[in-house]
Amino acid sequence: MVDYRPMWTDLDLDLEKHDMLLQAFPSMYGSVFLGQQNRPQAMEYFDFVVGEIHGLRVKELMDHKASGGKVVGLYCVFVPEDLILAADAIPVGLCAGAQFSVPDAEEVLPRNTCALIKSSFGFKVGRTCPYVQASDFLIGETTCDGKKKMYELLAEHHPTYVMEVPQKKTPLGRQLFVEELRALKTKLEAETGTAVTADKLAQATAVIEAKRSALQRLHRIRKARPVPISGLDALLVTQISFYDDPVRFTDKVNALCDELETKIARGGDVAAADSPRVLISGSPTAIPNWKLHQVLEESGAVVVGEESCTGTRYFNYLTPENDGSLPAQLAAIADRQLETHCACFTPNDERIQDILALARDWAVDGVVHYNLQFCHTFANEAVKVEKALAAADIPLLRIESDYGDEDIGQLRTRVDAFLEMIRR
Amino acid sequence: MVDYRPMWTDLDLDLEKHDMLLQAFPSMYGSVFLGQQNRPQAMEYFDFVVGEIHGLRVKELMDHKASGGKVVGLYCVFVPEDLILAADAIPVGLCAGAQFSVPDAEEVLPRNTCALIKSSFGFKVGRTCPYVQASDFLIGETTCDGKKKMYELLAEHHPTYVMEVPQKKTPLGRQLFVEELRALKTKLEAETGTAVTADKLAQATAVIEAKRSALQRLHRIRKARPVPISGLDALLVTQISFYDDPVRFTDKVNALCDELETKIARGGDVAAADSPRVLISGSPTAIPNWKLHQVLEESGAVVVGEESCTGTRYFNYLTPENDGSLPAQLAAIADRQLETHCACFTPNDERIQDILALARDWAVDGVVHYNLQFCHTFANEAVKVEKALAAADIPLLRIESDYGDEDIGQLRTRVDAFLEMIRR
Repeated sequence: MVDYRPMWTDLDLDLEKHDMLLQAFPSMYGSVFLGQQNRPQAMEYFDFVVGEIHGLRVKELMDHKASGGKVVGLYCVFVPEDLILAADAIPVGLCAGAQFSVPDAEEVLPRNTCALIKSSFGFKVGRTCPYVQASDFLIGETTCDGKKKMYELLAEHHPTYVMEVPQKKTPLGRQLFVEELRALKTKLEAETGTAVTADKLAQATAVIEAKRSALQRLHRIRKARPVPISGLDALLVTQISFYDDPVRFTDKVNALCDELETKIARGGDVAAADSPRVLISGSPTAIPNWKLHQVLEESGAVVVGEESCTGTRYFNYLTPENDGSLPAQLAAIADRQLETHCACFTPNDERIQDILALARDWAVDGVVHYNLQFCHTFANEAVKVEKALAAADIPLLRIESDYGDEDIGQLRTRVDAFLEMIRR
Repeated sequence: MVDYRPMWTDLDLDLEKHDMLLQAFPSMYGSVFLGQQNRPQAMEYFDFVVGEIHGLRVKELMDHKASGGKVVGLYCVFVPEDLILAADAIPVGLCAGAQFSVPDAEEVLPRNTCALIKSSFGFKVGRTCPYVQASDFLIGETTCDGKKKMYELLAEHHPTYVMEVPQKKTPLGRQLFVEELRALKTKLEAETGTAVTADKLAQATAVIEAKRSALQRLHRIRKARPVPISGLDALLVTQISFYDDPVRFTDKVNALCDELETKIARGGDVAAADSPRVLISGSPTAIPNWKLHQVLEESGAVVVGEESCTGTRYFNYLTPENDGSLPAQLAAIADRQLETHCACFTPNDERIQDILALARDWAVDGVVHYNLQFCHTFANEAVKVEKALAAADIPLLRIESDYGDEDIGQLRTRVDAFLEMIRR
């Protein structure tokens, strides 16, 4: 086994604290994932990636840096990975899903902040995330008040660049976002010394599109009944998409899909045939936030989709056709990113339509609306989701939670009651 | 006494609930305001306005409507009153400061929402605010996640138009806001049937500028030691500025200032000469949210300034010189509004500079940072405020509260300890 400690030392990690984090991880992962029945063989790769969570991929980033490349950290699907790739930099989604780093954040941030934001900030100030440490700079965005203001405080600890995302889906909002992409391109060129040309950007977009297409393929496979992959495994794949090498990752997802398609033909059995099919909609769930999926699937449901930024809101959108010039590509990327049906927009009724379509086409028995506590945008939108689902006669369970374990008993009780109600 | 019940019935108020609200009001107001020592004579007008809180001014609005005019409700200082006035409509700040309406809101909105937003929404759905009932439509804005998403739900109960406020202070953000003003002008013209001409807008801006200038004058008077007006009374004046007739109001504020200037010459005595001088900075405090001022002044402090949207962030900004054409006026209004140093911007370090300047020029002994619970923007910015004040050796007390009375004992204890510390 490779000793990554010298690398972690170079990255100025708090080694003692980081050891505590990593020691707890394998048994946690094992108990959630490895006991699942009839897992696809191809999940081995993703198990391996998780097993190397702060190792091999970080090593790859460091090798890239050693050869003169840059690494750019990000927290949100609104930041276009292809623009970063086109500057020969590597985009990497940063640690944001663990309760472990929350106490470090709470020494500074308001406690009434969502766990994702606190975890992100805590990983930086506690020096326990090698990805943020390896990042030459971070790109934040203005998608919510909590993150927007947290980035100001984060900037005191790490170089941080913030791009504005408009709040209304108007032509002028689009224009503002196109200009923001242009400014980001300039920033990336200045940081990397690499000119973003039309060719390089087209190639980078193709890489990202292939990744998204593979994730869409996996997502479509989950329409099958019985579904050949657990929600936990499918979620894990999307979670890994944010930091793995995109080309290798795409190959591995397609290999997984090949296996799953065979398995559908043979009859899959990751869950009982009469397991209630559930769609989760709402806040993103970053590694290792598997709590809701775990409770649902341990209670006998199978999660067949995530309408979230670790789900359809990440991979659903492809770049519109354009004439291939740099301005046209940037405009197309803006259109693709702004298609994201995030609750940061007002209004955002397209998301309601997405949920209804997913519920119908993936033949779900019920929807769980998941809201990270203190996330105002999704909490308010839940009111509209509830109304729309009631009108369509689709059962809904609204869950508000954080990264702690304290509510897991209550969660199980509520999930059990919900599944009892929706079981056919 | 005039019987306003027929008017309230016409406005579809919930009369029974509204009676409960109004019945509690006079004794509450009396206990907070009327026992203050050596109040300026000119406060009589403002006492009268509050005594008629849901009466005379609402009657004026209804008379305006009866003669074909429109009434436009708003919640935020980013909505330009002069643009509304220029369309011969009356802008009116809506009820937002009472715990009374919070339970009605909590039946729909997330409980983890700030009291100001819950109160606003509750006044509409509970039908207890005649101002919102009298409004032909409401203008919301995107200044925070909570309001932004609340307006979507409010729109199900009342015609609501939302304007986007940019989040970064960039040239393109300004351009977006100028376009938003242009769109708002079109909306106002369509609703009122009145063309907003350069002349009408210039006149309306002059009315608003006169109001702001009068409030600035009052604010400057509070530099005096001893200060000739209590913080409670000064706050009340600003609160009333949001819904009173602007021309009459301006006259009355100037009359108050005339009296106060005489009083300074004679020696004012609303508080003991050695009362600690306190600046309050943070979230706005709408009528009847007098809790923090009351606790501070009952405990022996005197509040000499409010760095808030019911304070300097409302009246500090005047319209830049321009060539008087309509486009130039709109651009100047955009510049004026965007000058507002609100925590909705990232970054917003100008606000920190404002606080330091106020602390110095108003010779304060300490600053109280007031944060409505669940307001992410001000809560995060408090971290920077704390750092800046510590560096300048200015004592700071951070208060997070809501509209309930439950924390008043704790508040008194913390305020007493703070005043003990800062007393010279």
